[in-house]
Formats: sequence, structure tokens, C-alpha cells
Amino acid sequence: MSMNTFGHLFRVTTWGESHGPALGATVDGCPPNVPVDEAFIQQFLDKRRPGQNKNMTQRNEPDQVHILSGVFEGKTTGTSIQLMIENTDQRSKDYGDIANTFRPGHADITYHQKYGNRDYRGGGRSSARETAARVAAGGLARAVLNHLLPEVKIVGYMTAMGAMELDRSKIDLGAIEGNDFWLPDAEAAPAWEDYLQKIRKEHNSVGATVEVIAQNLPAGLGAPIYAKLDTDLAAAMMSINAVKGVEIGEGMAASRLTGTDNADEIFMGENGPEYSSNHAGGILGGISTGQDVVVRFAVKPTSSILTPRQSIRKDGTPIEVVTKGRHDPCVGVRAVPVGEAMMACVVLDHLLLHRGQVGENQGTIG
Amino acid sequence: MSMNTFGHLFRVTTWGESHGPALGATVDGCPPNVPVDEAFIQQFLDKRRPGQNKNMTQRNEPDQVHILSGVFEGKTTGTSIQLMIENTDQRSKDYGDIANTFRPGHADITYHQKYGNRDYRGGGRSSARETAARVAAGGLARAVLNHLLPEVKIVGYMTAMGAMELDRSKIDLGAIEGNDFWLPDAEAAPAWEDYLQKIRKEHNSVGATVEVIAQNLPAGLGAPIYAKLDTDLAAAMMSINAVKGVEIGEGMAASRLTGTDNADEIFMGENGPEYSSNHAGGILGGISTGQDVVVRFAVKPTSSILTPRQSIRKDGTPIEVVTKGRHDPCVGVRAVPVGEAMMACVVLDHLLLHRGQVGENQGTIG
Amino acid sequence: MSMNTFGHLFRVTTWGESHGPALGATVDGCPPNVPVDEAFIQQFLDKRRPGQNKNMTQRNEPDQVHILSGVFEGKTTGTSIQLMIENTDQRSKDYGDIANTFRPGHADITYHQKYGNRDYRGGGRSSARETAARVAAGGLARAVLNHLLPEVKIVGYMTAMGAMELDRSKIDLGAIEGNDFWLPDAEAAPAWEDYLQKIRKEHNSVGATVEVIAQNLPAGLGAPIYAKLDTDLAAAMMSINAVKGVEIGEGMAASRLTGTDNADEIFMGENGPEYSSNHAGGILGGISTGQDVVVRFAVKPTSSILTPRQSIRKDGTPIEVVTKGRHDPCVGVRAVPVGEAMMACVVLDHLLLHRGQVGENQGTIG
Amino acid sequence: MSMNTFGHLFRVTTWGESHGPALGATVDGCPPNVPVDEAFIQQFLDKRRPGQNKNMTQRNEPDQVHILSGVFEGKTTGTSIQLMIENTDQRSKDYGDIANTFRPGHADITYHQKYGNRDYRGGGRSSARETAARVAAGGLARAVLNHLLPEVKIVGYMTAMGAMELDRSKIDLGAIEGNDFWLPDAEAAPAWEDYLQKIRKEHNSVGATVEVIAQNLPAGLGAPIYAKLDTDLAAAMMSINAVKGVEIGEGMAASRLTGTDNADEIFMGENGPEYSSNHAGGILGGISTGQDVVVRFAVKPTSSILTPRQSIRKDGTPIEVVTKGRHDPCVGVRAVPVGEAMMACVVLDHLLLHRGQVGENQGTIG
Repeated sequence: MSMNTFGHLFRVTTWGESHGPALGATVDGCPPNVPVDEAFIQQFLDKRRPGQNKNMTQRNEPDQVHILSGVFEGKTTGTSIQLMIENTDQRSKDYGDIANTFRPGHADITYHQKYGNRDYRGGGRSSARETAARVAAGGLARAVLNHLLPEVKIVGYMTAMGAMELDRSKIDLGAIEGNDFWLPDAEAAPAWEDYLQKIRKEHNSVGATVEVIAQNLPAGLGAPIYAKLDTDLAAAMMSINAVKGVEIGEGMAASRLTGTDNADEIFMGENGPEYSSNHAGGILGGISTGQDVVVRFAVKPTSSILTPRQSIRKDGTPIEVVTKGRHDPCVGVRAVPVGEAMMACVVLDHLLLHRGQVGENQGTIG
Repeated sequence: MSMNTFGHLFRVTTWGESHGPALGATVDGCPPNVPVDEAFIQQFLDKRRPGQNKNMTQRNEPDQVHILSGVFEGKTTGTSIQLMIENTDQRSKDYGDIANTFRPGHADITYHQKYGNRDYRGGGRSSARETAARVAAGGLARAVLNHLLPEVKIVGYMTAMGAMELDRSKIDLGAIEGNDFWLPDAEAAPAWEDYLQKIRKEHNSVGATVEVIAQNLPAGLGAPIYAKLDTDLAAAMMSINAVKGVEIGEGMAASRLTGTDNADEIFMGENGPEYSSNHAGGILGGISTGQDVVVRFAVKPTSSILTPRQSIRKDGTPIEVVTKGRHDPCVGVRAVPVGEAMMACVVLDHLLLHRGQVGENQGTIG
Repeated sequence: MSMNTFGHLFRVTTWGESHGPALGATVDGCPPNVPVDEAFIQQFLDKRRPGQNKNMTQRNEPDQVHILSGVFEGKTTGTSIQLMIENTDQRSKDYGDIANTFRPGHADITYHQKYGNRDYRGGGRSSARETAARVAAGGLARAVLNHLLPEVKIVGYMTAMGAMELDRSKIDLGAIEGNDFWLPDAEAAPAWEDYLQKIRKEHNSVGATVEVIAQNLPAGLGAPIYAKLDTDLAAAMMSINAVKGVEIGEGMAASRLTGTDNADEIFMGENGPEYSSNHAGGILGGISTGQDVVVRFAVKPTSSILTPRQSIRKDGTPIEVVTKGRHDPCVGVRAVPVGEAMMACVVLDHLLLHRGQVGENQGTIG
Repeated sequence: MSMNTFGHLFRVTTWGESHGPALGATVDGCPPNVPVDEAFIQQFLDKRRPGQNKNMTQRNEPDQVHILSGVFEGKTTGTSIQLMIENTDQRSKDYGDIANTFRPGHADITYHQKYGNRDYRGGGRSSARETAARVAAGGLARAVLNHLLPEVKIVGYMTAMGAMELDRSKIDLGAIEGNDFWLPDAEAAPAWEDYLQKIRKEHNSVGATVEVIAQNLPAGLGAPIYAKLDTDLAAAMMSINAVKGVEIGEGMAASRLTGTDNADEIFMGENGPEYSSNHAGGILGGISTGQDVVVRFAVKPTSSILTPRQSIRKDGTPIEVVTKGRHDPCVGVRAVPVGEAMMACVVLDHLLLHRGQVGENQGTIG
């Protein structure tokens, strides 16, 4: 029933269309006394911002976040927080043809079939611009996590893009910020860039896989059955535009394994249980183990491409669709900070749920 | 916040442990005047029931469902419906060792870390027996769908199990009921059975992939952003025990495709839009297109195996765990009716949401 | 959307009809490690139980609660708890006429108009028997409160019944358990009994007012705007059968007061702020002050009476309705333990919400 | 968990503080294709607006609403709607003393005790300015009701203010708009004005009672047990600042009546059932009967008064509080459009719930 809301206790409702006056996130349930300001949140929006390099859409938005409520004298008050981002670079004229035409692989047709009235300018509500609101909310969630659990680290990176695939033996999280692809492998980045420019020049686009991990989470976050940590992560990632698959730990490959291979054996370490491996992706029975929580999701190729595709108009007549305008050749690049934001929101939400329901009473080991 | 509940308007709360007196599903929001009785629901429980053949756990439960409320003179009344299944074959003595030991890959350790107190008998709340309650709720959802949208068909089947993989060119949905694996390929079934028996004799287990499709859904079910049809399906499937990945349509493979390949081109048919392909899995922008809705999920291998694995006791001391008792060598087999049940619940929920929010006003095409 | 559910984190879903096989409460979100058993909960059901004296319906139900899940070895596990009460004294034949007739002032007609299909036996879902499930859930909530905040006391009593009114200068909470009316004034009870027996002999019924207080709550429970403590109490009490009004502190009479009269002046006491009066009923801005939380609600007279009233049948033809069967002459008597149960659930829910959202960080005074 | 949200399907989340840059309402679940623009919503804000006459605070805000999302080409799109109102007349210096002082009867102290950090300027989040956001959301709800059920009329008026009381025999709904008190009795208005000016000159304030009715609702809105129409109305009205009591129909006086008096007898009219009276306030068993739905609520006197009251500072030291600044002598006057807004939101929400869960299948009579 909350069509545009996610979260249990840390509840984020996003609003706004690509070419309306503004978009944003209304956040209810943020704990009080958390230091946060616009600059802190802005750094995450700057990561997601389009127009930064030639691998992104050339739409140029400053994406400046404004905190309109819920923060007083630099700290959260416990009341609802409005994070607003004004739209400043809307070239509506680019999108005129779209009003009566459905792009193949795009939400144009289903929005029309469901609602009858849609803001077609720039994709309206179905535009990837909606993810700016998520990133703002995720920045707020990170501020809360920094306050409550400063040891937690959340980081995302690409692991595949069309024919390109990350060599997992070379993963170096320190390399991520040094290239345009959030690749944890500095040497591989130039080849990925060449590949993507070739795709773009062919008037095409390509899909990608993004992995997001949360490190140093305590054991015990999550809940059985439906508010499982993995359930909520799956929902969070699948709700991002263009995502078609979500994996936890071993993911789809778990179907190929035997029980002996898949068992993460347990040993007693100095600070609690340790594991021989992490096929589980840090989650057992819907609850965190204390290992890295590992989520992966696949983003389909951008449907708005310059190569003509067959489609129909609203009146049912056929048309060859060629989508001009400014589009990312691979939305996976900008999906990295979005995935991080969703991870931050889900992890914080479960931390608050855990405090509420369980308090500090946990079973000890050893 | 609803730890054990799923659904927006058709809300299912499951309760019960493997070795308690009973388990069940409390269903709130079921429409009135729907014909349903215990026999109708029982047929789906019979599909999931253990002990039916040698590919399943030998636990033998009749799993008889009792409707305790919300149905009067053979029809639903619109009030909450209690579906109860008594536990009858609990051999608690089988599980005595488990009280102080954590099975690798099992929720034993995280339940202990979170709650401190767990019903360890037979896995308690984390047992796959909980899925019986989901299947009962799914049976009720099917009764409602039969009443409101009789043309909708929901069917599940296995597509992979360890080294075995379905040949998609041979898919025959009519073959599914004729073999123990819900395989849509009658000829392949004996090889799958031999493979699974070999796994069992090696004191091992194996993972699997299950695909569930919903046919003849109307276009327009779903909603943008968080109550997306694919978001809710991802959550529903990921919430099933042992599931580690969920895919819609092309799924994780979408990351390998280009935009030209991935575009499902649109043509005008006699009864509305038709598509050249279904990479989207019947969902665009979170909303159904009218094509088959296609979901796939991977189930990890059963963690309870007879091969010894290294672990620790509650006191931190090391132990080699060998899990005796009665366990499925591949829980994927019984996950098929569970996946169908979750699909039925999610589809019905979105049908009710659509009626509430949108009514019958939809955009027409042609 | 949760038609039969209340609570945010401590979520209670009730189910069952008056003359079905059983009714109960499914409780999700109960904290783990709380000592509780059937006997503890039973004591509250025994207070509400009909047939105990001539001031109640003569229906005789043992109302024995069964805990079917979520409690292991005498403590809660954190998973969903099923509290079931079997119906044993259903004399369906008493209610045969009701199938096609609408009692004035009863839900018969609106259930029919909404749902088309209703279990008319004994009022079905609209029967006051549903409150047994609330009392069971309230007993569980009390067990949790005893564990987390043992100093909290919740007590209810009648303050008016038709022409009878409590003399507030004589309130003695110690007298409540000593009479059939939960009256905090032992001397007044005989007159109330005479009055009610006179009403009964006149084939009539009468309304009542019930007050419930929660003592020793900490300051800080509640939240602004919609999850206010008073909002949730108002909803909880108004949801009880036959309730037509709810008041906090001064209640409706606040409209008659001036600002100088209504101000509860504040002084610094040894253990924190103290107040000169409690017009506010222990709640300011939706948040508890630490004073007694005071809620009052009015129950209308039972609509099922032996005096004939004009009504219609399902086919629209007129009929004089005389309701035989076993009915309370004043449902307010049995509403006392129900009001206490709702108070316990709401207070616990807000305690859990507070722990989740705010943790222990509060502003100090002095 | 939704601290600042109300509604099931038509979900309104309000945000903003009295002296922040802006406040507003984020509305999720609004049906598509509803004609609405800023001017339509503005008319309701203009009714609530302060500074219009001497019976109100002299704060002068234009309270201009901006629709930032969810409306395209004059019609709703089905996506989330942001209604923003900028704050323009914040004289923060008026409120400097309040930072470390708690006004008796005000949320100052409980916000501090709960959150530790509060925006004390003008009451921050606890200011009655928050109700502007509710009125904006209510205006949107009215637009939807006009579209779906144009015959529905929602109207509010004052029935008491301190010593003043409406003579119910003189109620004329046509008179309401003609006086500053929303009084349905034109002749009485001058006496009410004299009374309130006397209260103001005495440096005092006074409480009030407001009644809101919804006419021409269909039978069948609401649901048993917790999503009852009266439950949701009670919560909606109690959530308004300063409200201390809520009544449906006969309200608290129901406790004084007998069953024979209270019975609304039923007759068959030309268009369905008709009733001899409306003690029930249009709701039986939580579901609308088709009669007028009648809700009344009491507002306490403004706590911010010029007469000194005893209180404490944050450090626990005593202080005599005199609240200067601009305050309404009776907030009940401006509570009328707020009560209407809440009624509109609740009625619409239940209309959408009914469509979703029940559809058009209802039991017929006659």
C-alpha cells in the first residue's frame, strides 16, 4: 500500500518526476541527535550525478540537496526529514515524440496501461532520476550508521558489464574511487572504458552487474520469514530501475553446489565465531552472521537507444522507435551509488528493528 | 515490522514451529464471497507434503489443513481466515544434539545470536515446515484468483539441480505432474532421479533452480518504485528458506546483453499489444505487460547432511557436526509448490491493490 | 490494510467468529526471552469470562487459552505467537432468526451490506467474543511489560452506568477486585447491582463508561503527529465493540476550560518533573509525561434486547425484532478487562517503538 | 512505525517545522486521472489560514501550496504527490526564551524528554502549523472524492467554546461560511465573538468542540475490528494538536442511555434502508450505514497564554512562564477546516480499501 515507500522503521518515501520542478525523499523514523548536514549527504549525490564523464548521460544537473525539515542546529530531531532536489536541466523538448509512442523495454507502455495519465517528459516517474532521491536518503542513513555503528563500511563496485568481467583475484577495494566504473581493479578500467565507448558509438547500450557489501555488521540483524535481511535486500535492489536479478552470497550458483561444498564451516575466534568461507553472503535464516553481507544485482541495458526498434503508438499504429536525447550507455555505472544507498537504508532499518524488538539481549557464544 | 507477515492487502502471517503442536497462516484481507473449502486447499499441501517418494525427507505428515475462521457456508466472509495444520510426526528425540550445536549453513547460530532462546527441535521456526503454512495461504489465494480472474494459470517447475539442467527446447508444461521433480520434460526425469539418489548415498545434498510463471495476467498490475510487481516477487521468493537468488525474465544474464538484443519489440495484435520476445519476464517499470510473468529462484543445498562438517558448540568448543534425522537431499523439489504459492499470493495482492488504487480506469491502446 | 490487526511493532491480528470452532490472536513482534505461560494469560481471560454472575450473559465458556507457537521452555522466542481459544458453548439454534433479520443498532445490516456473506450465528465476527482474543494478547503484553518495566501498573474500572455515576472523591483502586462491576468504591456496588437488575428485568440494557490508567510509565513514550500515544489509545479503545467515545485526561470537558485552568503547572521533584494536576491525562504532544496515563471510553447499551424494536428483513419487509438468547445487560462490565488489555498492548508497542527509534538517548532535566 | 504518516491506501506523511524553510505533505496512493490544481487545494488552506480576523493569531502567512509532483497536465498520475508550503513569516526572535523553558500544557517538555533535540522555534514540529499540511492533503482528498463520489459532502462547525454552546435546534449548515467561527447559527455568532474577545483581553484562552459530518456516503465503508471507520476517525481526530476527546454519534453520552432509547429503528425506504434516528453516528460494527457520519472532538485551550504559570527550565530551576508571541485564543476556530480535512482523508482511504478488498460485490436489501 505504500507504493512509493520502503523500510519498516526508517521509512523512505520518494516523490518527483524527471522534468517536474523537484524530486526528493521524505524520511520518517530517523533517530534523533544524529549529526548531519547537506554537505555530508551531497557527497553521495555527487557520486551518482550525471554528466561527470563521457560514460554517462550528458544531462548536467547539480543535484543539490536541501534539508527542509527534521534537522535543527546540525542534528536530527527525530521528526520527519524532507530532502529535496530541484530539477534544473530539463530539456522537455527532447522528449516530445515520446508522448504517444512506447519505447520497447521501457515503462512507457505499462504506465499508460495502468494509469492512463503519465508524465512522459524524460520518463517522468520511471526515470532513473528517481534514484537521486534514494541516494539522498542513503546519505542520511549513512550518517545515522556512522553515529550508531561507526565501524560499518558499505561499498559497491561493478563486477561485469556486457563482455567485461571482473577478475575476482584482483579485487582491491582501494581502487574503486580511482576510475569511472567503480571498478576494484585499476588496471582493468581502461579496457572497460574502451568497450563502453564502442557500445555507445554503435548506438547501443549494455547491461551490468553490481556488487555491494556491508562490512563489520554485528550478528543478529534481520528476522525470520518475511522481514529477513536478505528478503529486504532483495526487495530493495529489485526496486531499482532496470534491475532484473538479485543474489545473496553464492546467489544463483548455489543451485550448482552440493551441501559439502556450500557449508561455511565454523570456528571459534577471539571475538566470536569465524567462518571458513562465505557462501552464505553473511546471512543465515534471514539474520546476519557478522561476516560481510554480500549482495549482487544485474542491471539490464538501457532501453533508450539510437538503434531503431519496432514498436507501436498509443493508437496502435506501428512505428520505428529511435530514442534521441541524453542517455547512459550503461546505467550500471550510476547504479553503484544507488545500490550502496539501498544497502545503507536496509542495514539501518534492521538495526532499528533489532533494537526495538530484541534490545540488547542476545545469546552469547563461548 | 511485521516480521512474519507478507502482502499489502492480502496479508499472510505465518506462525508455528516444526515440533510445536501446530503451525498455520492467518490471512487478513481476503475478499468475501469466494467459494473455498479445506479440500481445495489440501490439494496444494498434498503436492508439498514430505514422505511421498524417496527423493524427499521420510518424515510423514498428513499436513491436513483446518479452516478455523473466515469461511461460512462454503464462502469467504471478508474477515480474517485462520488456516491451521497440526504437527503429528514430531520425533523430537532425533534432534537432541542440536540444542547446543550449530549446524554449518543453518540458522541455528544466527537465531541463537539474535534471540538467545530458540526452539531447536527440528529447526523450530527456521524449519522448512513453515512453508506448509505458505502453501495453505497460496491455496486460498488461488481460490480467489479462480473466482476473480479464472484465466490466470500459475505453474512452477525445476530448471536445474546440481549438474542437471533443463533443456529449454523440450519444455512441456503438461509433463510436470507426471514426475517427482516437477520437470517439464518427462524424458529427463529418470536421469535427475539417478543423480539425486547418488547424491543422497554420498551423504550429501544439492541445490536447485525453480522457475514459476503466471500466465494470462492482465497488463497493469504492480506499481512504481517500491510496490513494484518484481520487487514483491523478489521479496516473496527470497523469503523462502534456503533461497539465495531471484531473477525476473532474463535475470542475471541481462548484464551480458546489449540494448538491441534485450529490446522486446512491440506489435499490435488483435487483443492488444504483442511482443517479439519476453526478456522482461512480463514486467516493465514494475508493472505487468500482459505477457507471462517469469520468476526464477535458486535454492542452496540442504545444510543438514550426514557428511561431517566442522563447527562449534554454544560454549565455543569445536565439534564435528553430522546431521542425522530425516532431511531432503534437495529442498528444491518441495520448493516448487512453495514458489507457486508465493506467486499466487503476490499476484492476488497486486490485483487487489490495483482495484483499490486505480479501479477500472486504464489507458487504452489502439 | 490490516483489517484485523493493530500495533506497530507488537502486532496483534485477531481471528475467529462467535460460533466457529475457535478464535484467537496471532502476535508478531513479541520480544524474546520473556517468561510466560498459559496460566499467566488465563488469569486475564478469567476476568473477562461470561457467566460468572448474574450481571453477565449466561453463556458459559471456559475460554481456555492455548499457546500454539513462539514460546519454548517457558520463554518467548521472538517468533510469532499463536494464542487460540476453542469455542465450546455455541448454541447456534438460539440465533436462527437472525440469518435474515437485522437487529437495530447491531452490525448485522452493515456486514450484510458490505460483504454479502456473514456468519450470522451469534453475531459471528462482530460478536463481543472477539474481545477474548484481545484479552489473551493483552495478557501476553503484560508479561512483556512485567519483564521490561515491572513498575508499570495498568488498571481499569467503571465510572458510570446509565444513571449510576462514580463519586470520584471515593476512588479506592484496592476495592476494584471485590465487586462484580470493577468499581473502585466498595460501598457503591450494591446500588449499581440493583440498578442493573432492574434494567434487565425491564428487558432493557444500558451503556457505561470505563476508565483505564497506566501508572509509572516513563516519560518519552509516543511520537508526534500520527503514532502519538493518545492517537493509538483512541484507536485501540474505539476499536472495541460498542465504544462510541474516547477521552484522554480532561477529555470532552477540555472544551469548557480556559488556559489558566487547564495548565498543569510544573515543579522540579526529586526524581524529575512533577505536575500540579493532570488535565493532560499524562500525555503532551502525543508523548507520555511520566504522570498517570488516563483514558476513558463510553460503551453504548447492548443492542440485543428483549423489548421489541422495528426493523426489516433482508428482503426489505418490516419485522419487529425481539432478541432472545444470552446477552449482557451492560457490556461495559466485561469491557473493563478488554480496555486494560488494549492499554497493555499500546503501551508495550510504544515502548518497543521508543527503543527502536530513540534508543536510550533522551534529554535530561535538571 | 510510520510516526508521521496516516492512512492505509491514501497515505499522507507530513513534514516540516513551524520555523523551518517549508512544510508539506507527501501523499502516496492517490488514484490517477483526478482533475486537481493548486487553486483547488488553496481554497481549503485559505480557510485555515491565520491572521484573517481578530479571533486568530496575527501571524500572517500566505500559506501558498505548491504541487511538486504527481500531477501532470491538470490530472493526477497515480504517483506520489508532494504538496509544499513555504514558511514566510517566521519571527524566530519571538521565541528565544522558549529554548530552555517548558510551557505548562505544551509539548516542549515531552519532546525534550523523548528526543533531547527539538526545534523550539515556534513550537517546531509540535506547532499547529503542521495542520496546514493536513489541510493541503485534505484538499487533495476532496478532489478525489469529487471525482469518484461527487454526492459526498463534508462539513465542519463549532458546537461549543468555553461557556458558549450551540443550540442544536437552530443548526443551519448554510450559515457556516458567513461568520468567523464556522457556526451553523448566524444569530449566535456575535455573542461568541464577544466572549472570545473577553477571554483574549483577560490574557487567557479557551477550549472548544468541533463537529464534522460526512453526508451521502454509501453504506459499506469500513471494516471489522481495527480498520473500522470509527477507529480510523478517532485516530485521525485525536492526532490533531490539542484534541483530548473524540465522539461518534451519541459519543460519551451513550453511557447514559438504555438499549430501547439508543436503538436506531430501521425502515425500508425507496432507495434502501432508512433509520428513525442516528444515535450510531452513521457507523455500525465499524462500517458505514449510509446515514450521516458524525464525529465530534474537543480541543483544549491554547497552552501559550499571557497569564503567568509556574514551570521549570531545562536545568530544573523554577520559572514563571508568560508566553508572548502570536497565539490563537481558541485553536478550535482553526481546527474546523483541519477536522474536515481529516474526515476527507479517512473517507477516501476507506473508499479505496473497499474497492480493493470487496470490489462492487455487496449484499443487497429488498
